[in-house]
Amino acid sequence: MNTIGLVAFALVGSAKAIREEFDLFGITVVGLAMAFAGGATRDLLVNRVPLALQSPSEISLGLLGVGLAITLSVVLSSPDTHPVTLLSDAVGLAAFATTGAIVATGAGVSAFGVVAIVTINAAGGGAVADILLDRSPFILFDDFYASCAVLGGSAYWIVGSLGATGSTAAAVCATVTVVTRLAAVTYDWNLPTVQTLELLSK
Amino acid sequence: MNTIGLVAFALVGSAKAIREEFDLFGITVVGLAMAFAGGATRDLLVNRVPLALQSPSEISLGLLGVGLAITLSVVLSSPDTHPVTLLSDAVGLAAFATTGAIVATGAGVSAFGVVAIVTINAAGGGAVADILLDRSPFILFDDFYASCAVLGGSAYWIVGSLGATGSTAAAVCATVTVVTRLAAVTYDWNLPTVQTLELLSK
Amino acid sequence: MNTIGLVAFALVGSAKAIREEFDLFGITVVGLAMAFAGGATRDLLVNRVPLALQSPSEISLGLLGVGLAITLSVVLSSPDTHPVTLLSDAVGLAAFATTGAIVATGAGVSAFGVVAIVTINAAGGGAVADILLDRSPFILFDDFYASCAVLGGSAYWIVGSLGATGSTAAAVCATVTVVTRLAAVTYDWNLPTVQTLELLSK
Repeated sequence: MNTIGLVAFALVGSAKAIREEFDLFGITVVGLAMAFAGGATRDLLVNRVPLALQSPSEISLGLLGVGLAITLSVVLSSPDTHPVTLLSDAVGLAAFATTGAIVATGAGVSAFGVVAIVTINAAGGGAVADILLDRSPFILFDDFYASCAVLGGSAYWIVGSLGATGSTAAAVCATVTVVTRLAAVTYDWNLPTVQTLELLSK
Repeated sequence: MNTIGLVAFALVGSAKAIREEFDLFGITVVGLAMAFAGGATRDLLVNRVPLALQSPSEISLGLLGVGLAITLSVVLSSPDTHPVTLLSDAVGLAAFATTGAIVATGAGVSAFGVVAIVTINAAGGGAVADILLDRSPFILFDDFYASCAVLGGSAYWIVGSLGATGSTAAAVCATVTVVTRLAAVTYDWNLPTVQTLELLSK
Repeated sequence: MNTIGLVAFALVGSAKAIREEFDLFGITVVGLAMAFAGGATRDLLVNRVPLALQSPSEISLGLLGVGLAITLSVVLSSPDTHPVTLLSDAVGLAAFATTGAIVATGAGVSAFGVVAIVTINAAGGGAVADILLDRSPFILFDDFYASCAVLGGSAYWIVGSLGATGSTAAAVCATVTVVTRLAAVTYDWNLPTVQTLELLSK
């Protein structure tokens, strides 16, 4: 799952940079930022040297995603919205959320700390990529994306505090994240804004 | 003071996100970023796991500020510029500056390092919130805001190197920060730009 | 070389902030971010308290660059594109790349980790400055700038793994970075975008 996620995240980030006509260096940086910035921020928050700087295999997967984005963008106009990409991205979101939950638990943070690190691990890379593209992170106003990681992280913490083993909690986290994400894509879920809530209350 | 600051900072950040029509997740993230990103950056710089990830009570105060922003924005158009908010924000600026000064001193950094960490602790959250909203941080071109923390941190270092105890230095830091901030709000202080200076010299 | 680099980087960052009509605090922050954010990020990634917070002499050089930008901008419209600045900036790029290579090697990261830390140390400050100015980092779509650090870092790693001593590898890194950068400025090098590559293949 982590493998699929790294390739898919790098592909999505690079495809965005290609549409902005970034050069080959920029395409590579945005792709790698999308794939690794969430995990690197997680590692900084728990005081570890980021795993991506130490593991050559992780980086190779990121570079594979960058290469795929460049190759596919000649054939498809938006390889990042292709159904296969959306499915792989959902799998990656779940994998990154679960890794975040395990690392956060090991670091001894609070329940909120677990959910925060899960969300940063899963959705932080996309937020950094959007900032590099000079945009507000789309997760803050559109789609139902980071919220899937919030739900997965909360589920992890709840079943863990009910006495489930670490591997059961991890499986629950991954399942909740990927199922809610696929539901969000299928049924076009969005969170309300305050403006929507006010309209509804009238 | 820290309590008032966390609620006020989260309220101000969330109110900005509400005006940009961010969804409920985005409103929460910008509010919590405004309240906690400065302190978390401080902790990363001195190699600690951020306190906000460990302390449930701190997060509850941030979420209270987010909830207040959502509730009040139905009644007021800009709860973040209400006099009570401006006063609470000035109190928070002073509290965060003082915490930064104490942590920086404990980490054994230089005089400049103290002032830098004080400023990041007090004004860094607002800068991160503005970047998430796809703006230049307002503290870089408008108002007299982060400069109050620079003055407070400098005062802390000066009285400390003159032999004052830690608690005296902390009281001086908090007082200088809050008094200069309230003066800046009352008298509409601004720092000059180079363009203004050139006009004045003609 | 490090001295020249700190002054030149701070000057370039401050000159950009002056053109955006930032106030004196903003000019100082963008200048210091340009000079120190790359090295500080490097230190965070390898779990050290940033050197710039501990060393008063480094900060003095940064503040000298800020002061030069303010003084010179009264005389020159763009002191950051003056040939002397471009040359000093290339020297700084090489110095920061080499420091990054040495620190990364000491931290025991992978070959990719070395190149990543070299690039972040050399070009990360400029990227942070651009984000503070509400722009996409120019290194992602324009010029041939960060790529010089990528080449320097790769050369460092290659000659190191061929058995060269640390000081030889450092000299090779600095030479490759500064020579490719000066060639890029002289011959106006740019990396292709995917759009350019597609045009060329037709």
